[in-house]
Amino acid sequence: MQVDIEWSKTEKAIAKLAFDKAYEREINALLGEVREKVSGTFTLQDMWNLHDYLSAKRHDIDGKYDYRYSVLIFVFAQLVREGWLSLNDLDGLDEKKLTRVIALVNM
Amino acid sequence: MQVDIEWSKTEKAIAKLAFDKAYEREINALLGEVREKVSGTFTLQDMWNLHDYLSAKRHDIDGKYDYRYSVLIFVFAQLVREGWLSLNDLDGLDEKKLTRVIALVNM
Repeated sequence: MQVDIEWSKTEKAIAKLAFDKAYEREINALLGEVREKVSGTFTLQDMWNLHDYLSAKRHDIDGKYDYRYSVLIFVFAQLVREGWLSLNDLDGLDEKKLTRVIALVNM
Repeated sequence: MQVDIEWSKTEKAIAKLAFDKAYEREINALLGEVREKVSGTFTLQDMWNLHDYLSAKRHDIDGKYDYRYSVLIFVFAQLVREGWLSLNDLDGLDEKKLTRVIALVNM
């Protein structure tokens, strides 16, 4: 799925900031989770479970953080849905883009 | 590579004990390593490095701990070489087996 829309210079700056913020939040949450899982009792099975979890997360994160303008609306919608971005983080994007994001979030 | 040799009941008991001991030592060392890597500064890159490391270790450990009597001499030799077993742990195996293990260790 692609959307051909123009991004102004200001919008690009806002988008980049929001994108990086979401990434940082998600990564920090994941680092915290890993630390949490490893602390306390941490058995062999926990370790292989952690390995499986990281495999899935890595795949998920690598695929999700795709900074092409043609897919960015979908990326933002997913990040909002998952809680890594709020609509406030997208303040300054034009009305049409925000409406699309919101529509996708509510789908 | 296979070796067709007989294992007495006593030898089987000694072998199983040594095998389990090596496994426990290696796993405990690995759990300690993971805890160590995660403590202190633990960045995104550290996390993916840890993931790669666990992928390799899992593959290595799954392949190495093979409790078939036909390959056990080779398994023991590798475990001794890597320091997870000492020759003392194999005390009670017959002379021929021990000699083979030692020869493989020194290869």
